[in-house]
Amino acid sequence: LGGVTAPCGFEASGVRCGIKTRGKDVSLVYSVSPAVTAGVFTRNRVQAAPVLVSKDRVGQAKSHGVIINSGNANACTGVQGYLDAIRMAALTAELLEISERSILVCSTGVIGERLPMSKVTIGIKKAVAELSPEGGGAAAEAILTTDTETKMEAVEFDLDGRPVRVGGMAKGAGMIAPNLATMLAIITTDAMLAPSLLKSCLTSAVERTFNRITVDGDTSTNDTVLLLANGQAEAGEIMPRHGLRRFQAALDHVCGTLAEAIISDAEGASKTVVIRVEGGRTEREALQVARTIANSPLVKTALSGGDPNWGRILAAAGRAGVRFAADAVQLWLGDVRVVREGAACTYDVKAAEKAVAGPDVRITIDLNMGEETAAVRTCDLSAEYVRINSAYHT
Amino acid sequence: LGGVTAPCGFEASGVRCGIKTRGKDVSLVYSVSPAVTAGVFTRNRVQAAPVLVSKDRVGQAKSHGVIINSGNANACTGVQGYLDAIRMAALTAELLEISERSILVCSTGVIGERLPMSKVTIGIKKAVAELSPEGGGAAAEAILTTDTETKMEAVEFDLDGRPVRVGGMAKGAGMIAPNLATMLAIITTDAMLAPSLLKSCLTSAVERTFNRITVDGDTSTNDTVLLLANGQAEAGEIMPRHGLRRFQAALDHVCGTLAEAIISDAEGASKTVVIRVEGGRTEREALQVARTIANSPLVKTALSGGDPNWGRILAAAGRAGVRFAADAVQLWLGDVRVVREGAACTYDVKAAEKAVAGPDVRITIDLNMGEETAAVRTCDLSAEYVRINSAYHT
Repeated sequence: LGGVTAPCGFEASGVRCGIKTRGKDVSLVYSVSPAVTAGVFTRNRVQAAPVLVSKDRVGQAKSHGVIINSGNANACTGVQGYLDAIRMAALTAELLEISERSILVCSTGVIGERLPMSKVTIGIKKAVAELSPEGGGAAAEAILTTDTETKMEAVEFDLDGRPVRVGGMAKGAGMIAPNLATMLAIITTDAMLAPSLLKSCLTSAVERTFNRITVDGDTSTNDTVLLLANGQAEAGEIMPRHGLRRFQAALDHVCGTLAEAIISDAEGASKTVVIRVEGGRTEREALQVARTIANSPLVKTALSGGDPNWGRILAAAGRAGVRFAADAVQLWLGDVRVVREGAACTYDVKAAEKAVAGPDVRITIDLNMGEETAAVRTCDLSAEYVRINSAYHT
Repeated sequence: LGGVTAPCGFEASGVRCGIKTRGKDVSLVYSVSPAVTAGVFTRNRVQAAPVLVSKDRVGQAKSHGVIINSGNANACTGVQGYLDAIRMAALTAELLEISERSILVCSTGVIGERLPMSKVTIGIKKAVAELSPEGGGAAAEAILTTDTETKMEAVEFDLDGRPVRVGGMAKGAGMIAPNLATMLAIITTDAMLAPSLLKSCLTSAVERTFNRITVDGDTSTNDTVLLLANGQAEAGEIMPRHGLRRFQAALDHVCGTLAEAIISDAEGASKTVVIRVEGGRTEREALQVARTIANSPLVKTALSGGDPNWGRILAAAGRAGVRFAADAVQLWLGDVRVVREGAACTYDVKAAEKAVAGPDVRITIDLNMGEETAAVRTCDLSAEYVRINSAYHT
């Protein structure tokens, strides 16, 4: 598939320098020509040093790439952490013979420990040396933490009879929640777009994909989505009446696929669950109800046990802070309607059990207050999640 | 101790009628004289039938008591559920030869199933027959669901040289969160108070006790706290300059002790954790940060594993929706300061590990934004919690 190196003019690499106890831990994405860049960052009040550095640089001028380490978040590390993040970019830029500010930085891993800069320095040197147009897979591997699988996607569409490509990679296994999560995603494209248009395309894609998934309601200090557009496709510039819809669709597809991959690989999860709320007065209210259900430990543990415990779903909806008439609500598990007018209706218990037994569960609730709809994708809460998050210092 | 039967003029009983697979499941609290009554109920939009019935009755006229069943919440049961709740009260009142509206109703247990009224009827008859001034313990036992221990408390103070008593019982093991929880608490007193004063005393006590505990952030359809004051103590009426402070202190003590007992008995918990937030601009903001930390699955799983993972605590604080300067924050685990000015400070790692190893953990965070403080009591999130909530249909 190629991931971030599927679009023309992008190279990448993933290497090991020993920050993590095993596996690759330094990743580099590089555009041979300067790229227009957009970013979406964590809204957590506590932001890691690399987030502060990348926020400051993105959108201001063109970028040449992103240097990323896994195993250490470089968060809550004070002024020293900031200097370390700057140093990561400076060292990368120096080796690539480009301007320091044209490199962005991401980190993911343990919070509150200083980056092991001597290891990181060795990692950056290796990463620059190993840059390759086939390096997308290695780069995707090197950003993982507790993930069990690499997450990549690429897609192509036609503009002016020429192919335009969008590719990407992501990591994130726990602590996935709006706004963003402990997730990083780097998206690349060889399309040509103006900075303001690129930013609005990314914001729209993130809102519909990465911001509609949740593992546990926790958000991170490091969440970052970056989009680099280097214009190396031979098609013309993307503009409102010239390829914009197709570009947005391609970007949505890549972000959506990566978001689904994150939920499928959620820590300890055995099921993917889509919570769809219909009949909201506003989309925002529908989304608020969907998120509250998606983050309810009682709902998630019931699903883990394959228990069609719809009472917990209604109870979670009821505490979402959204006004609705409890006696007008309908609820479905898969295609089985279990609640009508707020009360249990006669239903096939075996069919309801079957609807929550498998790896894909759909829950639909109709608030009957309006016409607006929203869906959130989540996973179950298993004893394995607790084991992962209590046994390991992540 | 006596619990609800410690105050003069109260009788109680707890019997088994077979709603639960084992144990007592019908509980009756009865005042020999009509009692002034106050109540605080769940703010969930989905409210069980007994909540609707009791809300309608409490405070309107004096009450004679409360009939409670465990094992079935009588929630999401539609019009039939409402009729069943009314019937429970009517039957109890008929047997006691008092007016129907003077009996309040509570239920706790599985949501969405109709009450087994033939069993409940037998239970109510037994409960009325077994009423006794020594029945507080049996009554406290019969309201339990997944709880492992009965929760009772009673206290006495002097007014006009006469003893005044406050007693209570509670249940609640999971799904404990503001506002209220899957918790029931029945408080009795032989003090004499005007209805409006009784209500304000109860609201104040609940806000500082039951509303400052959380197990998992879920709130229930059935949460109820009732306070009955029958004036049977031989002291005079409680008024603003006549015993009010002592009464409030006694009530706070009973509610506080019951709230602590609920957290200690939380499903699968191995630790009690007090999260104290200092330096807030307002108490509300401090409370908001404390609650967000207290409900973070990542914080709670780390504590379950005895991991002094303060980065997760800061990250949770950062997503609480409260503005603060991340680089001014301080954080302590027990007495060990681990964060100063938003970054790790030099600390004794062994001491920090010890601070989160035992059954009582204190976490203190200073936001450095103002002078306001709030504390929330919670527990860790263990694999056992997941087992309980996935294996049993509760």
